[in-house]
Amino acid sequence: MTEFIFRRQFAIEWGHCDPAGIVFNARFFEFFDRSAWLMFEAALGVAPQDLSTTFDIVGIPLVGAQAKFIAPAKFGDLADIESRIIEIRRSSFDVEHRIFIAGTLAVEGLEKRIWAARHPDDPLRMKARAIPDAVAAKLKPA
Amino acid sequence: MTEFIFRRQFAIEWGHCDPAGIVFNARFFEFFDRSAWLMFEAALGVAPQDLSTTFDIVGIPLVGAQAKFIAPAKFGDLADIESRIIEIRRSSFDVEHRIFIAGTLAVEGLEKRIWAARHPDDPLRMKARAIPDAVAAKLKPA
Amino acid sequence: MTEFIFRRQFAIEWGHCDPAGIVFNARFFEFFDRSAWLMFEAALGVAPQDLSTTFDIVGIPLVGAQAKFIAPAKFGDLADIESRIIEIRRSSFDVEHRIFIAGTLAVEGLEKRIWAARHPDDPLRMKARAIPDAVAAKLKPA
Amino acid sequence: MTEFIFRRQFAIEWGHCDPAGIVFNARFFEFFDRSAWLMFEAALGVAPQDLSTTFDIVGIPLVGAQAKFIAPAKFGDLADIESRIIEIRRSSFDVEHRIFIAGTLAVEGLEKRIWAARHPDDPLRMKARAIPDAVAAKLKPA
Repeated sequence: MTEFIFRRQFAIEWGHCDPAGIVFNARFFEFFDRSAWLMFEAALGVAPQDLSTTFDIVGIPLVGAQAKFIAPAKFGDLADIESRIIEIRRSSFDVEHRIFIAGTLAVEGLEKRIWAARHPDDPLRMKARAIPDAVAAKLKPA
Repeated sequence: MTEFIFRRQFAIEWGHCDPAGIVFNARFFEFFDRSAWLMFEAALGVAPQDLSTTFDIVGIPLVGAQAKFIAPAKFGDLADIESRIIEIRRSSFDVEHRIFIAGTLAVEGLEKRIWAARHPDDPLRMKARAIPDAVAAKLKPA
Repeated sequence: MTEFIFRRQFAIEWGHCDPAGIVFNARFFEFFDRSAWLMFEAALGVAPQDLSTTFDIVGIPLVGAQAKFIAPAKFGDLADIESRIIEIRRSSFDVEHRIFIAGTLAVEGLEKRIWAARHPDDPLRMKARAIPDAVAAKLKPA
Repeated sequence: MTEFIFRRQFAIEWGHCDPAGIVFNARFFEFFDRSAWLMFEAALGVAPQDLSTTFDIVGIPLVGAQAKFIAPAKFGDLADIESRIIEIRRSSFDVEHRIFIAGTLAVEGLEKRIWAARHPDDPLRMKARAIPDAVAAKLKPA
């Protein structure tokens, strides 16, 4: 079995950057989030906006997120981000993201997400649910 | 010696929230960033925008950031955030943030920052510099 | 009858600013949006998050927004924003925002919003609905 | 002479959307800004991050921005945006943006920008400067 890695490239925009001329830290978590959705689409063949209806979930909310900023990314840089699931548990999973600028690792990220249904008692709360086997099989690391 | 804790309260805005009706994860890192600057102002008596000229630094850039999302924060919630330095090293320090909603811990954050001067060879790179003793004395945990 | 003006003050944050060191244009539309919600709260005595249930609407979505950038706002600046409704029509209204930095007009904004119910055929579409007289009376300009 | 139109396609992301499930208004001004930079790159053959050094300017700051929201854009939608300069004056110009979702005009935008040099007296202020003929020739509408 081979490991599923999702890759995309995007450019660092003017609006991503702060007065130091480099990407404002919060933006990296937007980049991670976007790649997580697209990784699911690539692996499962389900568009992000259809994920909740296809699998009867609310979404794949984060319970944790982290980043290590190794080298700066600045306006105009081309960022190559690769994302993969490094661990799947019963109802949660960890996504690792690595952003490269000109071939050099610039940022490492980790997201902890859960497979979540709407909480029966409160529409704004969520409840972890078991990840279907068919989903896990397509996402799980080698 | 008492520990320095910076507290502020802010409301969760419509624009902070995503289609699930809760704060989009990247926003929390904006909240942390804001509190880090204000914590410095409160502890050092130097306004955020004057930090770089006062201490001849570029700023206090992040080398790491992380968050644990424990309970959702939604539109209209009042968030109480408290921030403190939990460790100071020679040229870097760790800031812990805790966000409470209605008295319940909703998000825990950690930022790793460096005290940074402009890199002599490249205006977009930074170089860690020793934190002045007078600064460390005002920030250091008990 | 006196005109209702909503005022608040906020500081320009590091994360609001771009590599030119001034507020990135999109952020002003966040500031306007926030003030529009708070102006409603001040005028109607209904918290932003309760607006939709109190009046059986989806919200007060924008059909237009504009800004004139007269003077830059930079990191650390204190912004005084004042907001008022300059016109109310049957199911829509115009909100004017003016942002002052150190007493000087820096940005002028205008939002065109509608009083909107969920469209009966599509949960993501909205339908303008007549603004209740009691609401209009509290908001209407002198 | 033919009119220069810059086109790109992008997807509406989860993080672009608000609790109503549609794009939060401020995000459209990010989309416009991004297209303005890319339009310049396409027309002038100069990368966004090289614009200031190539032409000895600070940038192309906004003095005005506006949008008309005609139809909602929601998570997963593919947005086609086309951008063109509709008027060039001595030191300023107007960029029109039109966003289509599934072939339907969803948002119309207009940016008023200036060709700006650093103000001699204040690094955070800017001063309009005459647009070079060679630049105007490549951008001007038919």
